Amino acid sequence: MSKNGRKAILLLSGGLDSATSLAIAKQDGFEIYAISFLYGQRHSVELECARKLAACFSVNEHREVEIDLGSLGGSSLTTDDKIPKHNSVAELGEEIPSTYVPARNTIFLSYAIAWAEVIGAFDIFIGVNALDYSGYPDCRPEYILAFEKMANLATASGVGGNRLNIHTPLINLTKAEIIKNGLALGVDYSLTTSCYDPDPNGVACGQCDSCLLRLKGFEEADSVDPRPYKIGDRNAKHGS
Amino acid sequence: MSKNGRKAILLLSGGLDSATSLAIAKQDGFEIYAISFLYGQRHSVELECARKLAACFSVNEHREVEIDLGSLGGSSLTTDDKIPKHNSVAELGEEIPSTYVPARNTIFLSYAIAWAEVIGAFDIFIGVNALDYSGYPDCRPEYILAFEKMANLATASGVGGNRLNIHTPLINLTKAEIIKNGLALGVDYSLTTSCYDPDPNGVACGQCDSCLLRLKGFEEADSVDPRPYKIGDRNAKHGS
Repeated sequence: MSKNGRKAILLLSGGLDSATSLAIAKQDGFEIYAISFLYGQRHSVELECARKLAACFSVNEHREVEIDLGSLGGSSLTTDDKIPKHNSVAELGEEIPSTYVPARNTIFLSYAIAWAEVIGAFDIFIGVNALDYSGYPDCRPEYILAFEKMANLATASGVGGNRLNIHTPLINLTKAEIIKNGLALGVDYSLTTSCYDPDPNGVACGQCDSCLLRLKGFEEADSVDPRPYKIGDRNAKHGS
Repeated sequence: MSKNGRKAILLLSGGLDSATSLAIAKQDGFEIYAISFLYGQRHSVELECARKLAACFSVNEHREVEIDLGSLGGSSLTTDDKIPKHNSVAELGEEIPSTYVPARNTIFLSYAIAWAEVIGAFDIFIGVNALDYSGYPDCRPEYILAFEKMANLATASGVGGNRLNIHTPLINLTKAEIIKNGLALGVDYSLTTSCYDPDPNGVACGQCDSCLLRLKGFEEADSVDPRPYKIGDRNAKHGS
């Protein structure tokens, strides 16, 4: 794996997308500075996955930042509100769901550009995708472009002529394509979690938007998700 | 003071600018939801000032958010690095000074838009100004415009057609004009602090960029700063 000699900040949630984004950034030869957030999400099993992925991909540094979004409220992901459950992807609505966390990606990316300035990085990776996703506004290409433009006006790096680049290698891929890419790059998806509402042992619910999109992705990629599910476990179905 | 019936998030540092911005937002009839950050700054006397100002202006709510910018480093304001000192405003350089905190306003504004979404506010006040300032990139009008555009793509509010507005009532004012405006609106500047390097009792150093700009502002406004200074105290000079 050749190094391009450049540092990149990578938002590492511990989910399927960020793991694939990590594999791609690594393949591109970046030195990886991963950043994860404990933001009051109920699925904090993510952090354990993020740590395992960081170790697995030998990142240069992995920072965990604790930020208080839960006290602001406004999302079923950070409060006791019920996580919406469905039986299939076809049931997912057009509206922005209650799992949307206000300004989450903006806050995460803001910390990323701060750290980028400090370590002299000009590349930031975020694993958003705008096809098989939950419909959050801060996953769309037009948002990312606007953030990048803002970031270059906000920072000393930008003013100094060193352009900050927000990389979104997954943005136009389907979940199946993301999984295929990741598998080709050796991502061990058993180290990732996507469920919005896992049980205390990290077993995915199989019925939240994120589980349904992930399961559909594995199915369309002709692969089997190695994570355990409470409902819809293809491993279980196929026997072991 | 007539109410316009709208809620506004207001970034309240406890400094001269945010206090004036608060007085203006209040005068405009907004219901004020003030937010202050403890971000590892050495001048945390700011927070005490912010609390007093919030009480003085009877804000609807005042949130204090603790965020860890100090561990990222990169600024003399959040580390043990020496704060630059000068004898007069004429000595201030053209370059971005070491007191610049990477992406600070972007992180603060990101929390502000998150809270705005939760409480249904579409107006955000920030007391940046681009004339008598320390030369930080994230105080310039082009940055604010880019942030506003990004915010409207990032959020459910923006997508829903409710435009988020970032108000910068001070952006084109000199420090003297800001002070004159504030005094006319009844701001008690003894409740504000601007020093980057105050002593443990909150006495301003009188030689950092921020002190020099503030002292010059009061001088040009034909007024006397009610705060105590270690060096350059006009109160002391004029006797008491």
